[in-house]
Amino acid sequence: MLNFRIIFRIIGFLLLGEAFTLLLPLLFSLIYGEADCLAFLYSAALCTVAGVVLWFFSRKARRVIGKREGFLIVTLVWVIFSLFGSLPFLLSGAVPHYTDAFFETMSGFTTTGSTVIPDVEILPHGILFWRSLIQWLGGMGIIVLGLAILPAFGIGGMQLFAAEVPGPTTEKLSPRIAETARRLWLIYFLFTGAETLLLWVGGMSFFDAVNHSLTTLATGGFSTKNASIAYWDSPFIHYVIIFFMILAGTNFSLSYCMVTGKYKKAFSNEEFRYYLLFISLFTVIIFLGLLLSSQPDVEKSFRDALFQVVSIMTTTGYVTTNYLTWIPILVILLFSLFFFGGSAGSTGGGMKIMRVVLLMKDSYYELRRMVHPNAIIPVRFNKRAVPDYIITNVLAFFMFYFIVFVFSTIIFTVFEPDLDSAMGAVATCLGNIGPGLGNFGPVNHFGHLHEISKWFLAFLMLLGRLELFTVLVLFSPGFWKK
Amino acid sequence: MLNFRIIFRIIGFLLLGEAFTLLLPLLFSLIYGEADCLAFLYSAALCTVAGVVLWFFSRKARRVIGKREGFLIVTLVWVIFSLFGSLPFLLSGAVPHYTDAFFETMSGFTTTGSTVIPDVEILPHGILFWRSLIQWLGGMGIIVLGLAILPAFGIGGMQLFAAEVPGPTTEKLSPRIAETARRLWLIYFLFTGAETLLLWVGGMSFFDAVNHSLTTLATGGFSTKNASIAYWDSPFIHYVIIFFMILAGTNFSLSYCMVTGKYKKAFSNEEFRYYLLFISLFTVIIFLGLLLSSQPDVEKSFRDALFQVVSIMTTTGYVTTNYLTWIPILVILLFSLFFFGGSAGSTGGGMKIMRVVLLMKDSYYELRRMVHPNAIIPVRFNKRAVPDYIITNVLAFFMFYFIVFVFSTIIFTVFEPDLDSAMGAVATCLGNIGPGLGNFGPVNHFGHLHEISKWFLAFLMLLGRLELFTVLVLFSPGFWKK
Repeated sequence: MLNFRIIFRIIGFLLLGEAFTLLLPLLFSLIYGEADCLAFLYSAALCTVAGVVLWFFSRKARRVIGKREGFLIVTLVWVIFSLFGSLPFLLSGAVPHYTDAFFETMSGFTTTGSTVIPDVEILPHGILFWRSLIQWLGGMGIIVLGLAILPAFGIGGMQLFAAEVPGPTTEKLSPRIAETARRLWLIYFLFTGAETLLLWVGGMSFFDAVNHSLTTLATGGFSTKNASIAYWDSPFIHYVIIFFMILAGTNFSLSYCMVTGKYKKAFSNEEFRYYLLFISLFTVIIFLGLLLSSQPDVEKSFRDALFQVVSIMTTTGYVTTNYLTWIPILVILLFSLFFFGGSAGSTGGGMKIMRVVLLMKDSYYELRRMVHPNAIIPVRFNKRAVPDYIITNVLAFFMFYFIVFVFSTIIFTVFEPDLDSAMGAVATCLGNIGPGLGNFGPVNHFGHLHEISKWFLAFLMLLGRLELFTVLVLFSPGFWKK
Repeated sequence: MLNFRIIFRIIGFLLLGEAFTLLLPLLFSLIYGEADCLAFLYSAALCTVAGVVLWFFSRKARRVIGKREGFLIVTLVWVIFSLFGSLPFLLSGAVPHYTDAFFETMSGFTTTGSTVIPDVEILPHGILFWRSLIQWLGGMGIIVLGLAILPAFGIGGMQLFAAEVPGPTTEKLSPRIAETARRLWLIYFLFTGAETLLLWVGGMSFFDAVNHSLTTLATGGFSTKNASIAYWDSPFIHYVIIFFMILAGTNFSLSYCMVTGKYKKAFSNEEFRYYLLFISLFTVIIFLGLLLSSQPDVEKSFRDALFQVVSIMTTTGYVTTNYLTWIPILVILLFSLFFFGGSAGSTGGGMKIMRVVLLMKDSYYELRRMVHPNAIIPVRFNKRAVPDYIITNVLAFFMFYFIVFVFSTIIFTVFEPDLDSAMGAVATCLGNIGPGLGNFGPVNHFGHLHEISKWFLAFLMLLGRLELFTVLVLFSPGFWKK
């Protein structure tokens, strides 16, 4: 029997936290004297009531959390946070339909960045800030979950080299979790502050600088401008954002190493090296492609190539140029990046660099195993042999990612008959990126989709953000038994 | 050091076999009194000379064949057979350019069935028969290789449950190989004869009946008519072809069981059951889709759905209807079938049903493993636990298939900027199917492609036919060492 009480208790507690964060946008509503004040007050009140009720009725909960409770809590948190987080959009009238408000909020908390809002520039500042804040919180949530909480509970779904803590655990672990979480918060704050400062210096308004810092560090991609980063024609701003996107797509444990001066340790990390390698490789190819095909401006070609490669690979989703106008091979090259994703332990979505590298290595080693069938050739990562069960898990992850992508594309074509658009929408939502292909390119939005498609894409965002398994185990028959 | 002499000797011997088969179309050239006679005579002569030279210069070969020699022979046979097999097309003038002739021949020997010939109905009968014959020989080659020769040499690349014969082997195994091969030839002949008879009775000319039997059993898909099977508006002919396509996509060891009366053994085979399940499932969905969308004729809808599902799944590639006119979701459903393929040990290409099932099972079991991390949950197939190394191999195969598909699509868009067309062309050639999507649909041909693209697609056909590893190991650095 699942310990539902502890699940409710934790969610109740977290809802009180969400209620608090719902008050933060009030600052901007008051500064700019805009009418969305009340929307946040009402939303915070509703959220508080729900939190208190859950907290009160679960007060007799046994303080034991097993793996299954863990899976359920994580999934429920994202869903319930989105349910309540969509209230300000709805109550302020910024997004009049609930489906749209939920899509926008889920796109926020999952750090996807796909939007249903045709014109964001007419939104009040409080609402714009809330959009950015939920991405920032979602990004934070993923790092703390992936690097502090889940490893402590021995849940390996989101953390490849999870510490193996068997069986149900109690709150004894909390000091260790709290210490790790504190450090992560620290550098997350630090980076956000640093980027805000630099963007402000670079010529953004303070408000825009804050918002874009929040959504950069979360690899979210919501912007306060319809044209996204293309609004600013400033190389400095572009390069600052590129730098912080790269940081956001890096394992935050490594960033902590770097901040504390352990550069050598960080740069000897294999995932980090491959991450930089992939970025360089794709940038060079696309840069040359742009030079040869259309753009004569060398610096602009390089910047566009680098910006879009980093933006897509880290799953941020900002745009400085409409990449759909590139020659087809460059578009498809960029589309293949939809399946890479950030590093493990970063705010980036997608398959994750570590998985991609392990898949490539294992496939390559399989060729060597065929020629030398009696030799034992383990895959090595960071100079250690990777255990078989991790390889199996990574391969199964890839299979699921592929199956989900294909089936979702098929289902999606019921409402969106164009194959490119369907593939793009599914890949961008599953990978938590933002813009897609065809009708959902960088200059389009998702507002005109059928309602069912919006719920479906929101589900894909959740699935991708929680790295499939965390959500999919809930559908496996063994999960609910006993 | 690779034993090149034995490689040359075997290829020389096989070329003499090809020279003999080059004489068979003469029968039809003479019957119809057509001018392609000489083309076959010259081709056979050239082939004989090449065979004799290779045979003569390798007479001192040590009679030892290791795994690496095996991989190399298999790949070389398909390439060299296509080089010589393309001569009649070229010499007769039926296909004036060598690139096209090679593409057509590789498409034949790999049982793909994609064609560069805009109008096949003006070709002389000898050439048409040669097109069908190379498919039939290619199909036979694959079965004998996969079910008799490779298992004996312990080469597991094309046979999932290969007998494990370690180290280099000598010709001592040949009686066992010969016996298995003899049985396979027997039922292959038997089925071809039976289908010829039924198609003839059903109203085809004897010549068309022979040709279509050859290309059905090979799951090849070359037709003597531009409209493929749609030329005949006869339900009987369609159902006969459906039946034999299903047989051709079945493991020929199982077919042998069935022919010798062991029905129970055949129907208890798990791959066979899944094979029939997938066919039924996709047929029902597409049938209902066709009924609801466009076609009011129930029987014709059912027949089209069944025919196209079977044709694509078995990788035959015949068409009775232009499936690109279906509503998008049905087209994409059918396209997803491009990645299934026939059974292991059949003439079908693609990923193979057994691999698809193992992938699905392993992925599903991974979910159970996540909920119960301490339980050992092996994947079972045909009531036996599947060893880990096979699962790893299957997963690596899938990875390679995916990587090859994606990279090839990217490369292909250089010459064919339409994404659907590119994906379709790559998938259909890699899966040895025949028709694709977009500009390479069932009513189009590959003739207008750029030369480089044709060589590239021909390479993909080879890669797919030899199930990737056999060809890819040749590119692994360890292969050529020592």
